[in-house]
Amino acid sequence: MNHKEILPRLKKIEGQVKGIMKMIDEEKYCIDIINQISAVKGALHKAEMIILKNHINGCITNAIKEKDAEEKIEELMKTIDKFSK
Amino acid sequence: MNHKEILPRLKKIEGQVKGIMKMIDEEKYCIDIINQISAVKGALHKAEMIILKNHINGCITNAIKEKDAEEKIEELMKTIDKFSK
Amino acid sequence: MNHKEILPRLKKIEGQVKGIMKMIDEEKYCIDIINQISAVKGALHKAEMIILKNHINGCITNAIKEKDAEEKIEELMKTIDKFSK
Amino acid sequence: MNHKEILPRLKKIEGQVKGIMKMIDEEKYCIDIINQISAVKGALHKAEMIILKNHINGCITNAIKEKDAEEKIEELMKTIDKFSK
Repeated sequence: MNHKEILPRLKKIEGQVKGIMKMIDEEKYCIDIINQISAVKGALHKAEMIILKNHINGCITNAIKEKDAEEKIEELMKTIDKFSK
Repeated sequence: MNHKEILPRLKKIEGQVKGIMKMIDEEKYCIDIINQISAVKGALHKAEMIILKNHINGCITNAIKEKDAEEKIEELMKTIDKFSK
Repeated sequence: MNHKEILPRLKKIEGQVKGIMKMIDEEKYCIDIINQISAVKGALHKAEMIILKNHINGCITNAIKEKDAEEKIEELMKTIDKFSK
Repeated sequence: MNHKEILPRLKKIEGQVKGIMKMIDEEKYCIDIINQISAVKGALHKAEMIILKNHINGCITNAIKEKDAEEKIEELMKTIDKFSK
């Protein structure tokens, strides 16, 4: 499977993280920094959702077709649980 | 206020984001990529909490002492609400 | 599909919500009330994860086997996205 | 401090939890049940935010005025951290 479609998103996220370091260096207002960090978390969440969808359309779908999905679904649930709480 | 204490955290987060791009480039397993993205979100959350604490100890505390905190507390609540849902 | 296994969890959650109303009535300490509300949110999250797993093992698996999963996976992603941010 | 303003919200949440049990009993569609559970989590989050604001306007403000806020702010941060991740 190939997730290269999300590379530009991650490149942008890297730039946002650098931007936050600059905001701190320039002693910007705390609330503005926190809101910027929240924005980056939101962008990472979107990247996560794209990979998750690819995973369900790829690995999970194949495992179900091959009637060997139990372990994969267990792993999927743990991952969703981890990123959603 | 000065949040320079969190610069090394953000430097590390920048490295983690680069690492995720490398994982995608090398077509690593989706679930491992998602877990790594979740780890970065967790690290950003910690940075957020540190700045929030500085903000409460600094701006909010001063505003309360000067009996002019209503607007600041309103802004604080919006920020907490945004990053916690 | 049948989710009756989670009825006892929801019964317990109902009791916890009643308990929170009692805490408020008795003017308990705010932080204790908030922590109790967080506990209920955590319990609801667990219930959600159980139903989600049933859904993937049932509806999603069937749709994939019948090669008609696109719409179901779209719906699944929206649901995960909604409860995880 | 008095949070009785949120009692009607909690009463409504109790009704929603009962409604979810009914949905399960009537074997409603999984995704509809999950969305309803997410709605209850959202309603609990709003209740949490109201109590948190009261707490900051009450206990935290008093502690800051009496120059004895360190422990209270530590406790506040733990609570925000717990409900926001």
